[in-house]
Amino acid sequence: MTKQELIAQIRKKKSFLCIGLDSDITKIPEHLHSETDPVFEFNKQIIDATHDLAVAYKPNTAFYESRGVEGWKSLKKTIDYLNNLEDPVFTIADAKRGDIGNTSTQYAKAFFDELNFDSVTVAPYMGKDSVSPFLNFEGKWVVVLALTSNKGAFDFQFIQDDQNKEKLYETVLKTSKSWGNEENMMFVVGATKAEMLQQVRKHIPNHFLLVPGVGAQGGSLEEVAKYGMNKEVGLLVNSSRGIIFASAGKDFAEKARVEALKLQQQMEKLM
Amino acid sequence: MTKQELIAQIRKKKSFLCIGLDSDITKIPEHLHSETDPVFEFNKQIIDATHDLAVAYKPNTAFYESRGVEGWKSLKKTIDYLNNLEDPVFTIADAKRGDIGNTSTQYAKAFFDELNFDSVTVAPYMGKDSVSPFLNFEGKWVVVLALTSNKGAFDFQFIQDDQNKEKLYETVLKTSKSWGNEENMMFVVGATKAEMLQQVRKHIPNHFLLVPGVGAQGGSLEEVAKYGMNKEVGLLVNSSRGIIFASAGKDFAEKARVEALKLQQQMEKLM
Repeated sequence: MTKQELIAQIRKKKSFLCIGLDSDITKIPEHLHSETDPVFEFNKQIIDATHDLAVAYKPNTAFYESRGVEGWKSLKKTIDYLNNLEDPVFTIADAKRGDIGNTSTQYAKAFFDELNFDSVTVAPYMGKDSVSPFLNFEGKWVVVLALTSNKGAFDFQFIQDDQNKEKLYETVLKTSKSWGNEENMMFVVGATKAEMLQQVRKHIPNHFLLVPGVGAQGGSLEEVAKYGMNKEVGLLVNSSRGIIFASAGKDFAEKARVEALKLQQQMEKLM
Repeated sequence: MTKQELIAQIRKKKSFLCIGLDSDITKIPEHLHSETDPVFEFNKQIIDATHDLAVAYKPNTAFYESRGVEGWKSLKKTIDYLNNLEDPVFTIADAKRGDIGNTSTQYAKAFFDELNFDSVTVAPYMGKDSVSPFLNFEGKWVVVLALTSNKGAFDFQFIQDDQNKEKLYETVLKTSKSWGNEENMMFVVGATKAEMLQQVRKHIPNHFLLVPGVGAQGGSLEEVAKYGMNKEVGLLVNSSRGIIFASAGKDFAEKARVEALKLQQQMEKLM
């Protein structure tokens, strides 16, 4: 999906909601466990109930890998299902990969060729040659971790550079943005650090940001919009647990829709 | 495998060789492609030909993921095979994972429970709560990226901290070593930066180091041993392509043994 197509979907749905499919098999409703593939069935019903409200879906690969081969089958079925929706959605493999060049190319093949995601999240620690291979796939996107939503973000991401006095996450933004462009790179900036979005926007006014941490992790949607939104909206705000596990009963999809609708309505006001 | 057991294997085999199973299906010998699982058959023959010379094996997950479900089947068979060798070997899932706590726990389940690796490589960018969940698995190890062997290592890993004047990789070493101990943490330090092993050893004199970059990437084994070896050896030096793709013919396993033997013999001298 191109940037313009993504923006068109955002305008059409009046939403910049991304739904995180952190589909933990131990948390999905009891009655689904008799299905051949309970996790895919869960995802399918969540997607059916919410895809008019969300512009993006983000399966978190860890929750699939932890189930081995069966998990990868569920992931494959999920991305195929997402790619066949009538209204296209932007798909993100939340995989946080990154390795030396020939290895990153293999990860890119995994997520872009084998699974056909639009984008994959990438950790920047290993530098340019660990990220660039993902950018060689036409029409695909890299989502680079800059400022993450967790407490551990403070361990290294705020280290101040002796030379330019910038924080590590800023150097990551400034350096890595030159590896691609606004049409094939996004950045992760956690909602739990919303006020820092002002600083982030100084470095990358036009890039899309993937913002996790609203909901279960405590971030505020209003603050994210206030500090992070640009003329093209420029935001994909993710909610995972707050939506997909809103209910553990037979009404899980219905309740997921209720939560997604709340966020979509707030987003519509903010746009 | 415990640290003492690993050291015992190193003494017994007179080797600190780790063989990287970067088993790219496009590079494995033609005649194996008629097998049901060519990649597993390739790995099996490599392992059979070398396991008296190597103390560790490191499948690189990217080369398995790029083949989707079939790749995960090959990976599963490979780790099962490694875990059933008469002489135990240390196993490393070279996966470079790391995410917020509940997600890292799922990755740990994937590699420690589902696949039963001894260890997994982890990227440090997201800090403590992205690494700690891996340390909650008894008897398992985390291998944290500190100083990688690639060119991109210079993009961020050498940024000097304004406060303590240390480079990022040093801060990563100093900070993260407190999250675990010498019995459950190792660090990646690339052989292409062997002279920096002196500096690394100032911070972590006793930890094991996983050293990639000897061979195809150009690092020198002598320099690695000179600057990085400690009383317990404290090194696992990895070679991947230089061993496993030594020949593309029917003699691939035999030629892999020749290359592994060369390294083992150099290691024996250096110990």
